[in-house]
This record gives sequence, structure tokens and C-alpha cells, in this order.
Amino acid sequence: MRTIRVGLIGLGTVGSGVIEILGRHREDFRRRAGVDIELARFADRNTARFADLGLAAEACSDDAQALIDDPSLDVIIELIGGTGIARDVVLKSLASGKSVVTANKALMATSGEEVMVAAEASGVDIRFEASVGGGIPIIEPLKHSLTSNEIVTVMGIVNGTTNYMLTRMADDGLDYDTVLAEAQARGFAEADPTADVDGHDAAAKIAILASIAFNSRVVMSQVPTEGIRSLSPADIAYAREMGSTIKLLAIARRTDSGVDIRVHPTMIRTSHPLASVNGVYNAIYVVGDSVGETMFFGEGAGSLPAASAVVGDLIEVARRIQSGSAPTVGCTCTEVLPLRDIADLETGYYIRLEVADKPGVLAAVASVFGAHEVSIASVIQKRAEEGVAEIVYVTHCAREASVRSALSEIEALDVVSRTAAVIRVEDI
Amino acid sequence: MRTIRVGLIGLGTVGSGVIEILGRHREDFRRRAGVDIELARFADRNTARFADLGLAAEACSDDAQALIDDPSLDVIIELIGGTGIARDVVLKSLASGKSVVTANKALMATSGEEVMVAAEASGVDIRFEASVGGGIPIIEPLKHSLTSNEIVTVMGIVNGTTNYMLTRMADDGLDYDTVLAEAQARGFAEADPTADVDGHDAAAKIAILASIAFNSRVVMSQVPTEGIRSLSPADIAYAREMGSTIKLLAIARRTDSGVDIRVHPTMIRTSHPLASVNGVYNAIYVVGDSVGETMFFGEGAGSLPAASAVVGDLIEVARRIQSGSAPTVGCTCTEVLPLRDIADLETGYYIRLEVADKPGVLAAVASVFGAHEVSIASVIQKRAEEGVAEIVYVTHCAREASVRSALSEIEALDVVSRTAAVIRVEDI
Repeated sequence: MRTIRVGLIGLGTVGSGVIEILGRHREDFRRRAGVDIELARFADRNTARFADLGLAAEACSDDAQALIDDPSLDVIIELIGGTGIARDVVLKSLASGKSVVTANKALMATSGEEVMVAAEASGVDIRFEASVGGGIPIIEPLKHSLTSNEIVTVMGIVNGTTNYMLTRMADDGLDYDTVLAEAQARGFAEADPTADVDGHDAAAKIAILASIAFNSRVVMSQVPTEGIRSLSPADIAYAREMGSTIKLLAIARRTDSGVDIRVHPTMIRTSHPLASVNGVYNAIYVVGDSVGETMFFGEGAGSLPAASAVVGDLIEVARRIQSGSAPTVGCTCTEVLPLRDIADLETGYYIRLEVADKPGVLAAVASVFGAHEVSIASVIQKRAEEGVAEIVYVTHCAREASVRSALSEIEALDVVSRTAAVIRVEDI
Repeated sequence: MRTIRVGLIGLGTVGSGVIEILGRHREDFRRRAGVDIELARFADRNTARFADLGLAAEACSDDAQALIDDPSLDVIIELIGGTGIARDVVLKSLASGKSVVTANKALMATSGEEVMVAAEASGVDIRFEASVGGGIPIIEPLKHSLTSNEIVTVMGIVNGTTNYMLTRMADDGLDYDTVLAEAQARGFAEADPTADVDGHDAAAKIAILASIAFNSRVVMSQVPTEGIRSLSPADIAYAREMGSTIKLLAIARRTDSGVDIRVHPTMIRTSHPLASVNGVYNAIYVVGDSVGETMFFGEGAGSLPAASAVVGDLIEVARRIQSGSAPTVGCTCTEVLPLRDIADLETGYYIRLEVADKPGVLAAVASVFGAHEVSIASVIQKRAEEGVAEIVYVTHCAREASVRSALSEIEALDVVSRTAAVIRVEDI
């Protein structure tokens, strides 16, 4: 058994988890998986981390290039993150004939095809299971066990921060600002929560999932994205009354008119498998033409869960090198599917209007919806305060563009104060 | 690209699904997975199936041996089932240098090690994803993505028939006989439901899962197994009152004193990820030392879901043959862990007694539990009818042997009519 020598670049949260797992299980991996993996060299700009992690000084460098240039290394683990230096490190490592394992969602969601093509050209592996869903096996099942399917839908709760916040809002009736402060205090949200609460993190992940599932490249900038900032406890309470719950879903569907992909708060029935995924947990729901509905659930973040996926990838690369064989799965982008404009989306809509508490309002609004061929499935009207009423509509399946046009007209009605919320409804 | 030639033995439900998937997607697999797979020959004793499935007569045989002896075949798919002829077919196919894909849980749960060793000796693959959980990817994630973990727990709802029945009992207050008749009428249960309702099917599946997860062989005859025949609507209703639900769980745990493995109706909290898995769905919950909690959910049976797993395995074998490389994962039985006697199990117990409606009963029973060091967490007493009361206990964590001894003594008390139910409680 030859020793597979690994260079680890980036010694943050996930990197320290990788060191911990290999420290604990290296001997087990020799016995159980038939591979001997040595974390041989480490690089980080923050050189204080070397001593903190108990690493031998001679194995450490503040320069990633030193590892890339080391011909004795078989694999580079890239845990720098982002699309700048990380992209350089990954491409140069691949070009030097080293396989790469990364947890970098931003990189894979922007330059995934470039990176996979580079790996294929060099005859090495690029693996990125940790880029989506932390430790949950999802990229590998999509590339392997589920290859027998035409995947129809990939839809998930892929951001633990916002799922924690929405769970707290739903369970305890708290408002957005309160739960954000709590999530920050508990370490579930960053000081600048933008990437999470505005949905960008989820957009990167669904771009990766859709690319693999549909064998066609989607990059994160192509994903229409709405976050959870404007969600109010009122909408969460109405959803509950209707037997539904609101989750920040990342959705990708294969349709006859192209890939429908988007991230937004979504109302789903409480009986849906994703509805009971609470707290910081993640889950990815996949529908295939043969397998039907499946779901993959687990911890979407954290040092050890993410490191579990990184080391899982590393063991696969090591097994492949050990056996002397070439990678069997290269770039997955074998198709070029168009993306469907979100204006063409057809789904249900939950719409909450603030209106004057006067006779005739319902009729006036109904006539505008009707003119735009938006058919209403249910209406709840409540008096909010003196002279002001709240009307909550749920539509049948309607075209996004029609709903938007109807709402523009409705907002222009004298009796309508404002559109307080528009939330798409799945599974109607 | 060379064509991978496959012999399919057994043309029942799953076999016809395999033919359907390859008929629909062969060209997609060439493009997306880079492999060309031809179902070249078919065998079944029931020769009427050949014409029903539209197969060319010259590709069909009533003799499996003809396919095993055909040197032009690369892979055999064994879908005969059972441990007799199927074992012969699998072992002979492997010995002849063919890789084998099977959905045969009975075979893998009794002769798994023999089969895996035979495959390794011949340098070919044996794959059996479809043997557990239908189309749900679980064997592959355990062998690959999750290899980085020491798996602590594998626990699942792995029998759709009984889960459908328990869901109906819980949702609609129906009794066992009614839901069994309904399940039979709807095609979810067989005319002889023994394998499902007595837990044998689940025992085979957990033996396979535990063997892979713990790298140590467990065979199905070693799994203490209780089915659902004696479950009453009363227990399901009490469970609900306590914020719990009852599921037929197949449980395997790595403990300091060996592998704890068993199948029985189990009370779990409604917040547990497995509690909301309803109807014919299956789910396998896995806890690893790094990944934490994960769960894999989907359809556990049916022609296309099971065929999805078979064809997924087939594509992997084809990729491996196409690349000219050797299998990277052989027999997983690298450890020899002892099995823990169920008498040594320590868990919570739900116990329902029918007793005389007299003063002093609670004290008498409590004193016996106390003498056996079984500590009670909660008690509910209800009058069932004139002179008869029902007492429901939930214990703290207690030793199985102690609970059994205590119950023998309690049943001998004058005031106790019978033990109406004993159900183990998880997650206490």
C-alpha cells in the first residue's frame, strides 16, 4: 500500500476538521478502505494557525504555491473559499497533475465547468461533495446511484442559517430581527448575514446541484434569488392556518421549455418531506423518472460534517490512485439546456394585500386578477385595524408575469394600500 | 466506446423495470455516463414472460446457466431472489469472471460475505444497492461518501408494507386486521404477509446495512426480530398522547460491548426525522462520528424505484469495465465485532398492563419494578371497563433482562390480568 500524500490549503473551520478526522481514523482507513492517507503539507496565510493546530513547522508554509509545486503530493485539498486565489490554486493544482478536493461552493457555482474540464484534461479528479449540504452525500448519489434516472426536480433547504431562523419564527412567532439577532448570538449567522438571508449561498448551491442533476451548466449569477428579509410573522401564521409552512427553498426543475431554477421563500404543505426539516438541518429533495421521490437530510454546515464530506472525497481519490486507474466520471456538462425566464414560471402564489376596509374591494381586486387570467383558489379577509383590512389570496397555478402585471394594476387601485407579501406556493 | 453486454436473469417486477429504463435511456447513458449498455440475453423459467416483454426469442433462455456460460457477457443481473438457485447463479457468475448486480436481500443477508469474497477473488464487482430501500441510495453512500466516519447508528424504516399499515392505524385509528386487508387489496401487502408483518424482511435489510456500516458481518438469523401483529390502536393512541409515534424500526448500533441489532415496533418522538416518514416510504437514518445525523428517504419498493438502483449499479460496473480498471471496493468485512445479546439492551420501555381496578395496584407494581431497578418515568392510569383498569408505564433507560424479569413477577400478581403491550422506546 503506497501512502497518498496530501497538501491541505486553508486551515479554517473545515480544515481543522479534516486534520481531526485523519488524526482519529488514519489507521481505520488503512484497514477498512485499503488506503493510507498522509496530510503531508499545509498552507495558510495566517501562520499562527500552524502552532494552534499542532502542526510541524517544516510541513507548513504561508505560500500555497509551494504545495502546488511539490511533485511528491498526490492531492490538494482547497479550503480557501471564494473565487479569486482559490480558483488559481485549484486550476494550477489540476494542471500539475494533482487531484483536488474542495468545499468551495462559490468556485464550483461560477467556474465549475472550467474546473471539471481542467481535471479531465489532466486525467485527475476534482471532487466537491462538501460544497453543498455539508456532510450530506448528495453530489455523489447524483453522479452515481441516481445516474439511471432523468432527474426531474432537485429542490432543497440548503442554508442552515435561514432554516434555523424560519423555524424559530414559525415555532415561536418571533419576528425577523429578533431571530437574526439570536442566530448571530448562537453562532448560526455571521455578523454580515447577507449571503445567507438574501439567498446567495442557496443560489450557489442550487446552481451546482442543477448542473450535476441535469448535466447542463448553470452558474449562480443565473439564479433568480429572493431572501427572507421581508418575511413577516403574519405570513408564517397564515401559512400555518392553511396547513402549510414557509421555507427558503432552492428549486431546480427540468421543464419542456428549459431549466426552471430559483431561490425564494416558498410555501409548502406540512406533509411535504421538506416541511419537517427544521433548525440548522439541510435536506435535498430529488425526483427522478424512475426512483420517484427521494430526500437526503443532514447537517448542512459545521467543521466536522463538512470535513466528513471532504475526507470522503479524499478516500475516493486515494482508492482510485491506489488502484492505478483513471477517474471514471469527468465533466458532467454533456447537455446545453436553456434556462427558463422566471416570468414564464407557472406556480401558485400567496398574496397578502393591505386594503381599505370598504365594500367592493374584493370585487375590484378579483376583476383585475380575472383580467390577467389569474385564478384564485382561496381568499381570507381580516380587519387589521380601524379602516384597514388584510386580504390573503392563494392562486391556482398562474404565470409569474401575469401575477406581476395583475399586482401592478391592483396596487394602483384607490382602495389598495400595498402588496404586503407575495410568496410562491409549491406542490399545488 | 465498447458495448457492455449484460445478461438479465429473472424477469419479474424489477426485471421488467430494468428493461424499461434501458429502453428509455440507453442513448442518454452513452452521452451522459460514457457507457454503452446492452441487455443482450435474458433468462427466466417462466418463458411466457419473454413475449410479454417484447424480447427477441433468440436472446431468451429458460436456463440461467446458458448466460453464465456465455463468455461474451460482462455482467449478470440476478433478480431471481431467495438463497437457493440465486446463490448458485451469483457464485457461478462471479467465478466465470462476470460482475454481478443483484437486488437480493435474502442472499446478501445470509451469504453476503461469501459473495463479496468471491467477487474480490475474481477481480469483479458485486453490487446490491437495490437490496435495501428500493431506489434510495444507501449502500453506496455508506461505502463511499460516509467512509470517513465511524458509523455509530444505522436505523431505518425499511419495510414499506408495515409502514403503510402503521400510518393508516395512526392516522385513522384502524386496527391491524383492517389495515392488513386494505394493504392487501391495494397491492402493498402479499397474500401471505409474514415476511413483512413479522419483520423478517426488515431483519434482512438491517443485517446488510449493519454489515456495511460497521465493516463486520451480521446475518439475518442473528437479528432479534418482532413484527407488528400484536400492535393495537390503543398503543398507537397512547403514543400520540405522549408526543410520540410507533414505527417498525430496524436498528443497529455500535456499542462498547458489540453490535446492538434488532427489529421491533419502536416508540419515537414525533420530532425525530424518522417519525414523519409515512405511507409506503422508507428512510434510513445514519449517525456518524463526524457527519452527525443524516437520513436517506424514498420509495422502498416498486418496479422502477428498485430498477433505478439496479441500473445505477450497472452503470457503475460499466464505467469501471470501460475504464479498464479493477474494482476499488471489495469485501467490506474487515472487522469482527461481537453481537450484543438483546438481554443486555438498555433502552426505554412502554408497558401497558391490564389490572384490577382496586386500590394498591400501583404500589404493588411499583415495588416489583423497583426491586428490579427499573425506574419509571411516567404513569397513566385509565379505567377500561367495570372493575378493569389499564396502566401505561414508560420507563427510564433500563436493562431488557431486568424489565423481562420484573414483568414475569408483575404478571404473577393477583391484581394484574396481563401485560397487554411492551414496546421499546428510542431516543429517551
